[in-house]
Amino acid sequence: MGLFTKDIKSMNDLFVHQLQDIYYAEKQLVKALPKMADKATDRQLKQGFLTHLEETRTHVQRLEQVFKMLGSEVKAVDCPAIDGIIKEADEVAGEVADKSVLDAALINAAQAAEHYEIARYGSLIAWSKQLGRDDAAALLQKTLEEEKATDKKLTTLAESRVNLRAAS
Amino acid sequence: MGLFTKDIKSMNDLFVHQLQDIYYAEKQLVKALPKMADKATDRQLKQGFLTHLEETRTHVQRLEQVFKMLGSEVKAVDCPAIDGIIKEADEVAGEVADKSVLDAALINAAQAAEHYEIARYGSLIAWSKQLGRDDAAALLQKTLEEEKATDKKLTTLAESRVNLRAAS
Repeated sequence: MGLFTKDIKSMNDLFVHQLQDIYYAEKQLVKALPKMADKATDRQLKQGFLTHLEETRTHVQRLEQVFKMLGSEVKAVDCPAIDGIIKEADEVAGEVADKSVLDAALINAAQAAEHYEIARYGSLIAWSKQLGRDDAAALLQKTLEEEKATDKKLTTLAESRVNLRAAS
Repeated sequence: MGLFTKDIKSMNDLFVHQLQDIYYAEKQLVKALPKMADKATDRQLKQGFLTHLEETRTHVQRLEQVFKMLGSEVKAVDCPAIDGIIKEADEVAGEVADKSVLDAALINAAQAAEHYEIARYGSLIAWSKQLGRDDAAALLQKTLEEEKATDKKLTTLAESRVNLRAAS
């Protein structure tokens, strides 16, 4: 999309643009999750990041399927939001001295990313239904359910183990 | 916090750091929401942004109260995540030619900000309880409920009015 141009002329254009945005975000998370797993000390948290990495690879493939369904080019556009979320996660992690506190910070960072995706997939699903693309909506819904489940797992892990240890 | 220093040594340090982060984010949203209200065409959406602006001002004040409860300096730290979310909102809005589609894009952008805050307040509440600060947790919980209510209102507005018009 060019500067000073108004390239989004229809709901379909907006839908495709935001697909390109979340496609970029998922690909950035495929790079970020192994680093988060490396930094995590709690074994369940480390494993949780690796499990979600596999899911995230599937999310990338599902988005490629949606592009194809729509007859659109598979393409990513820069997503300053996910870049900011990952940058902030790196900055905070770099400032934490204690390993248990670092685990709490990593969960916090991961939940910011999950919630970003939950917001984006929520709109994408609503728009695809509005555009009569229930086939795309069904695929995106699968991913949304996995993002929500990951967010819940992270909350449980924080409240049952990680925060207890970090505050002790 | 300085580069190459490990200034977060305890759960309490992480809690205060993330309070400073969301304090910055809320103050940025106080600046962004009037611009979003200006851009919105749908009257209910425009009013919704202005109502949430008033709530956001209260959220800023509640955070100042929490800083005081903890005996901490009222201070903001840069939050690349909210900067990224607002930058992306501006970029996408600048590319939309159609007014109804712009409303759909504005709702999408606002929901990304709401979800960022929902994630952050969720962790802050869990941490404050862990640290025995139920007084802070109760104040933060009020804000979290308002963020969740705003997110739901935006979904209803999108699905009942804005998306219909944007797709027509």
